[in-house]
Amino acid sequence: MYELFYWPTIQGRGEFVRLVLEEAKAEYVDVGRLPKSEGGGSAAVARAIDELGPPAVFAPPILRATIHKKKIVLSQTANICAFLARRHGLVADDEVAQAHALQVQLTIADLVAEVHDTHHPIGASLYYEDQKPEARRRAESFRSERIPKFLGWLERVAGDQAYLFGELTYVDLSLFQVLEGLRYAFPHAFARVTAETPKILAIRDRVSARPRIASYLASERRIPFNKMGIFRHYAELDEK
Amino acid sequence: MYELFYWPTIQGRGEFVRLVLEEAKAEYVDVGRLPKSEGGGSAAVARAIDELGPPAVFAPPILRATIHKKKIVLSQTANICAFLARRHGLVADDEVAQAHALQVQLTIADLVAEVHDTHHPIGASLYYEDQKPEARRRAESFRSERIPKFLGWLERVAGDQAYLFGELTYVDLSLFQVLEGLRYAFPHAFARVTAETPKILAIRDRVSARPRIASYLASERRIPFNKMGIFRHYAELDEK
Repeated sequence: MYELFYWPTIQGRGEFVRLVLEEAKAEYVDVGRLPKSEGGGSAAVARAIDELGPPAVFAPPILRATIHKKKIVLSQTANICAFLARRHGLVADDEVAQAHALQVQLTIADLVAEVHDTHHPIGASLYYEDQKPEARRRAESFRSERIPKFLGWLERVAGDQAYLFGELTYVDLSLFQVLEGLRYAFPHAFARVTAETPKILAIRDRVSARPRIASYLASERRIPFNKMGIFRHYAELDEK
Repeated sequence: MYELFYWPTIQGRGEFVRLVLEEAKAEYVDVGRLPKSEGGGSAAVARAIDELGPPAVFAPPILRATIHKKKIVLSQTANICAFLARRHGLVADDEVAQAHALQVQLTIADLVAEVHDTHHPIGASLYYEDQKPEARRRAESFRSERIPKFLGWLERVAGDQAYLFGELTYVDLSLFQVLEGLRYAFPHAFARVTAETPKILAIRDRVSARPRIASYLASERRIPFNKMGIFRHYAELDEK
């Protein structure tokens, strides 16, 4: 049994963890989404950041698990995903294969951080409205250079395989999520770039057709994309 | 024997890998720093990005190693450091301890990415000179909010231990490096914030006093900080 602590109103970085838990069919509680009366809500997540550990937590998502009868606390999205994947057969039981999976996962994480900075190029503590000219400039270079670079590279990683590493791994779930996020936030740029990346689109389709993922996406557990998350659609940041 | 592929004129992200190799007393070739006539230089690193793999490489640092008589290629700084640490006793031989180390390492990597963005808030492909007003704004929020948040959190992780996790791990080497980098790039902000974080300063001192690290820092192998790397000192980005 796992407990996930993440903000209840956005997909955000928590979504990468949720997808692994769902594909693994793991039993978990999404603590932030419980009613306040059952110890849920944003306040519960904020409390977890302050109180859980060691090691001290920097930011959610946070996973609490019981391993060999001991409660442990993990943070950092890629770290949590890799940990769950090892326990649930979503990565090969091999040191080198695991390092290869992690390096692609970490590069996807870098892409996600860059997506965040398109609407927050100056500071995460300021509103988008307070950094709009800078956001426009940053989004322009993100659309014209970074999306093609990242997706072109993922296309090379995919090669002719059904999934990024042949068999399904947790990294494919994150690839699915980042493609869905880019499609939502930057529909024009996404359409342009992915015209050249059919292989990763095919992986995205394979992931979304997996029974557990399809059932998750159709459920109430999947929070829709919105303008509070990492992937935000602002028309002015996605010019034709 | 390892081969490291990284830009020859900067510490950059390659430095986190170099510090692990040095503390491990591992045999390695810093390929980019070899003369061109011996297959070195920036061109050799650029070629490695294009040609090494699978999986395809996104960016350096890149490590090439021979594992069970097979050549393997790894990228992503934290991934390389964690891999080397497991092989050279610089992290405990325990799944949970390794995940805890990685999560702190990844948060240090996030801090490094934010340092980069203080001088490149709009785009990595533009010159600093083309994004100076934005850099000034971003650096201001980085100094006033992010440095205190990251270093305050690292101080909590350290607690009263000699190193972040009691015994030395690769994460301490990266902590040393990020503190040295912040001190070089933002001397005023660094002095202000670290007045409140004596424990991580003590870890930094312990790391720099370790014989292999001290000898590395005194050698020609240690490239000085400069204005091409991630940690850059621009007086206008570090107001008193």
